[in-house]
Amino acid sequence: MRFKVEHTDGDARAGIIETDHGRIPTPAFMPCATMGAVRAIRWNELEDLGYPMVLVNALHLHLRPGEDIVRNFGGLHDFSSWKKSILTDSGGYQFFSLKGLYDIDDDGVSFQSPYDGSRHRFTPESVVELQLSLAPDIMMPLDHCAPGDASREMIIEAGDRTLEWLKRAAKHLQKTGEKPRALFGIIQGGVEADLRRKYAELSGELDLPGYAIGGISVGEEQERGREIVDLTAPLLPSEKPRYLMGVGLPEQILDGIAAGVDLFDCVLPTRMARNGTLFTSTGRLNLKNSQYRTDPAPLDENCTCPTCRRYSRGYLAHLYKSGEPGVLGLLSVHNLAFYLRLVNEAREAVMDRRFDSWRKSFMSGWK
Amino acid sequence: MRFKVEHTDGDARAGIIETDHGRIPTPAFMPCATMGAVRAIRWNELEDLGYPMVLVNALHLHLRPGEDIVRNFGGLHDFSSWKKSILTDSGGYQFFSLKGLYDIDDDGVSFQSPYDGSRHRFTPESVVELQLSLAPDIMMPLDHCAPGDASREMIIEAGDRTLEWLKRAAKHLQKTGEKPRALFGIIQGGVEADLRRKYAELSGELDLPGYAIGGISVGEEQERGREIVDLTAPLLPSEKPRYLMGVGLPEQILDGIAAGVDLFDCVLPTRMARNGTLFTSTGRLNLKNSQYRTDPAPLDENCTCPTCRRYSRGYLAHLYKSGEPGVLGLLSVHNLAFYLRLVNEAREAVMDRRFDSWRKSFMSGWK
Repeated sequence: MRFKVEHTDGDARAGIIETDHGRIPTPAFMPCATMGAVRAIRWNELEDLGYPMVLVNALHLHLRPGEDIVRNFGGLHDFSSWKKSILTDSGGYQFFSLKGLYDIDDDGVSFQSPYDGSRHRFTPESVVELQLSLAPDIMMPLDHCAPGDASREMIIEAGDRTLEWLKRAAKHLQKTGEKPRALFGIIQGGVEADLRRKYAELSGELDLPGYAIGGISVGEEQERGREIVDLTAPLLPSEKPRYLMGVGLPEQILDGIAAGVDLFDCVLPTRMARNGTLFTSTGRLNLKNSQYRTDPAPLDENCTCPTCRRYSRGYLAHLYKSGEPGVLGLLSVHNLAFYLRLVNEAREAVMDRRFDSWRKSFMSGWK
Repeated sequence: MRFKVEHTDGDARAGIIETDHGRIPTPAFMPCATMGAVRAIRWNELEDLGYPMVLVNALHLHLRPGEDIVRNFGGLHDFSSWKKSILTDSGGYQFFSLKGLYDIDDDGVSFQSPYDGSRHRFTPESVVELQLSLAPDIMMPLDHCAPGDASREMIIEAGDRTLEWLKRAAKHLQKTGEKPRALFGIIQGGVEADLRRKYAELSGELDLPGYAIGGISVGEEQERGREIVDLTAPLLPSEKPRYLMGVGLPEQILDGIAAGVDLFDCVLPTRMARNGTLFTSTGRLNLKNSQYRTDPAPLDENCTCPTCRRYSRGYLAHLYKSGEPGVLGLLSVHNLAFYLRLVNEAREAVMDRRFDSWRKSFMSGWK
């Protein structure tokens, strides 16, 4: 994996990540193919939109179908047929969301499968091995994410552990004889500015190919999260890609770009689509509102996605109300087209050194 | 609507139906877009497969979103964006499957919406009006379908009523000043050979543009149903398309073609796909069987559908087990490709006067 910052505008950056599976212009957004597919849509639809990279969750693939099966298929690219770039998340965040169903200690995490109750153990080393079986372009280490209302003591415990596990993961990856894959670092530290600063510095010394800000949008106040991203992003090595994990809303992505973040992922655009909420150039649209039943307009007059080119709000509202599963895909394609356009327009604005004015203009149309 | 039989091979026929929305080579199979979309798939996928016609259910569209909305969009073609041919079924069969929730008398049917409990009344005339609002290429009259275990007395009541309603529907359609749409006749008569013969003759005298065999696969023994199709199809006017409603399995479609049927519809290929059962050139495949989890082969080595060109059984089995909604579409596309190939190969065999040998060869590979 290679990365180059090509333009800057304040803290905002426009660059290129290059993997064995293609070039990713940054800032970039990764749709979540959590279980190995982006929910409700087809890979060819994602290719047609032009997405260069997706996120897959290693924990989910470990539980089902199991990394041995994926490895026997030749890794995630061959298994899924998605031949562009893939980043695998480790599953650290999923433990946070499975409250009480896991035991975490300094050496790793023990947990039960929610599918069959089977017992599993993750360590920093085993999660590297798991991801080597999946063979993504970028892998994330096992981390410990404290909830948004955690005490400073808990944040320190989770943050120290995350740093320690990162060192172990990096060491283990170096020892393996397999083709090296990019391992990013993860910075925890909750909403404590001094801890974020400390972990950013100590992790940065490991000279990893990229760094991620974890533990944002985990229950803290949105404004506090924004401040932490503002503070942390510029502390991460400037020549490495900076990844803000699991965040989020269009306005949060713009805040992240302004702070110098290069890479984003979130289930939000696809999940909200499945809930009938669409992102448009003039704001959010709730397709469940009865006014849309008779509306011949596309979801967004300014959108050129396949859904907007072909379908009316009225027809989509009818399918949604009728419970037709196919419509969830049509709506997801639209929201993903919106997110791709958002980061692509942001990138052009950075290249033209007009990011702030573009962002203001975008947000004024939007709210 | 125009129809021409171009080749015959025994009772089997190869022809062309031509509507304002294209040419339909027959024998033809119509996927069911019951609520105005083929469940779990996209219209462009159906176009890519090459399907020339679908079935939409007028009763469902009446209940949701209502025919006024569809008419204001310019009819079903503009509402749905499907610009090839559409046949609308009246909903007579749906009353049969809503046992006890409707009251039928000589003048029509009263029923409650399963969605909101609202009361509705269908008459032969109102169902013509409803379908004129939907503006399909071919419409079906309101009919009365007796269950497979009905007494001869009940079969006569339903069959006489169906004939009487057909006359009323045809008369009402003639009176309307709107652009004429093809109204097909429906023949009832259960498993009573003499009644089928009588209704075929009396309906045939109405000189409608096409005729359908209703009331098959409604609970009667499959072999009895086959005998009735064998008997009835050749009694229908030979210069008109013959449509076997709601049937069904690949072997039943081949039986129908052998008897001289031109047109079929059934929810079976899409419903079975959603249940994980796939049709292949060597028989049925149950994707839920654990053997497929590690299988890199496509669903069917001999299939060129987009699903088989791209995806392995192992990956599809993983998505199916994971409950990913998108896989239901991938599987439905495959089964619909199988059905299209089935009728297209049957058509070529009829044209080459080798239908019987092709059918034997197909079934021997299949069972």
